[in-house]
Amino acid sequence: MSREDDSDRIFKALADKRRRRILDLLKDSPKTTGALCAAIPELDRCTVMQHMRVLEAADLIIVQRKGRERWNYLNALPIKDIHDRWIGDYAENAVNLLSRLKSDLEAPTN
Amino acid sequence: MSREDDSDRIFKALADKRRRRILDLLKDSPKTTGALCAAIPELDRCTVMQHMRVLEAADLIIVQRKGRERWNYLNALPIKDIHDRWIGDYAENAVNLLSRLKSDLEAPTN
Repeated sequence: MSREDDSDRIFKALADKRRRRILDLLKDSPKTTGALCAAIPELDRCTVMQHMRVLEAADLIIVQRKGRERWNYLNALPIKDIHDRWIGDYAENAVNLLSRLKSDLEAPTN
Repeated sequence: MSREDDSDRIFKALADKRRRRILDLLKDSPKTTGALCAAIPELDRCTVMQHMRVLEAADLIIVQRKGRERWNYLNALPIKDIHDRWIGDYAENAVNLLSRLKSDLEAPTN
């Protein structure tokens, strides 16, 4: 499997807002599949499981079974790889500066 | 336009390896459209321009016209936003550590 095949899977997984929402929930803390389903009541369990499988195939979540529970963890390494591919160490300071400038400009004036 | 609509556009733009290749080329240095087309001889100019339009609509490149030339710059801010959304300051050190560990484990032994 080439790196570009991996990237295809990662970006296709991230191109769906329901899957991004699952990652948002897992960023806060690892969750069981039951807890995740409860946190997204607008989707039925089967749909959530389908999205989890896409995320797992893209290596964006890591699943660990403990007894009858299925614990889901956000895997941040592919996200870090995206950052490093197009930003990297060299440009990091410049991008942080630009990002702060943008926030300042967009902040409502008091 | 919601943030999630922006994210849809960004991840769909990144889900094509030819567009990722264009961003790789622009990471090295800003380029004119002519120079970009010359760097990707396997794609005709019209195809390159189509991909550039998708990248520009996703705000991943910034285009500046100078005389008859069209200069294209990588815009790293959406990439930084992806990083901040799922990694952020708090987890950064842990993820860097994990990433180094993974590289060490995957490195060929001498």
